[in-house]
Amino acid sequence: MTPSSNSDSKGVFYLEDLHVGQRFISGTHQLDEKQVIAFAREFDPQSFHTDPIAAKDSFFGGLVASGWHTGAISMRLLAECGLNISGGLIGASIEMNWPRPTQPDALLRLEVEILELRPSKSKPERGLVTIRGITRNQLDEVALVFTATLIAPRRGTT
Amino acid sequence: MTPSSNSDSKGVFYLEDLHVGQRFISGTHQLDEKQVIAFAREFDPQSFHTDPIAAKDSFFGGLVASGWHTGAISMRLLAECGLNISGGLIGASIEMNWPRPTQPDALLRLEVEILELRPSKSKPERGLVTIRGITRNQLDEVALVFTATLIAPRRGTT
Repeated sequence: MTPSSNSDSKGVFYLEDLHVGQRFISGTHQLDEKQVIAFAREFDPQSFHTDPIAAKDSFFGGLVASGWHTGAISMRLLAECGLNISGGLIGASIEMNWPRPTQPDALLRLEVEILELRPSKSKPERGLVTIRGITRNQLDEVALVFTATLIAPRRGTT
Repeated sequence: MTPSSNSDSKGVFYLEDLHVGQRFISGTHQLDEKQVIAFAREFDPQSFHTDPIAAKDSFFGGLVASGWHTGAISMRLLAECGLNISGGLIGASIEMNWPRPTQPDALLRLEVEILELRPSKSKPERGLVTIRGITRNQLDEVALVFTATLIAPRRGTT
């Protein structure tokens, strides 16, 4: 989805430009075994993420992506989905869960919906945007669900 | 901290080997600008994470690590802190927040405490371990706080 017509001339959103229920759909990311292993060797060195043979005897029964990798890919998809908040996507907090493991051949995409918009109580020039993201694989199965709160500037305060 | 004496001969923990209040301290990870930029180019391509010059005019006033990068490094530190759960560190869900941005020169370390232990209601061979992790920088400032629930096998059920 491209930025909708209520964004400004730069195509970026302030708090007032967004509305609850607004949705954005990302492009896709094709995962592969090489990416899964490279990420896990650096950040999550457990054999079910790094060794296709050893992974067969693990909880997962085969190689799966680190949940942090699925999360980081979801961030990439979020950055490119059209939710172009003025000043960037700046997260204050996040909750996430992984309903199922992600296989190395997954084709991932992200759907984002705005759940809540509110002005900051302490900082009048800012607001908070709560979004829900759902990352799905090529079978439409849910790989990751997150709820995140982002900071968005308010119009006319700077 | 090395696995304490109530772990089994392989140095791994089952649910029954852990106790609420138990703590683990990781080693350290030295971040640098090259790592910050490389991670962000792949997963969080925003100029305050990828471009030291452009970052000066951003919300952060300079280059900072992606929160996903701080999270992924915290996972690495968790994997090496001595909390060696039998079968690996398998997360079901996580909440995290970033009280402050992480500078590219940060030296990060992780403290973990076990908050709760409970048997699974639906799967008698498993339990759930809730942990709090606090990632600090070299000034002892808190960079990341997370609460995560991990799966742990129970003794004598397999």
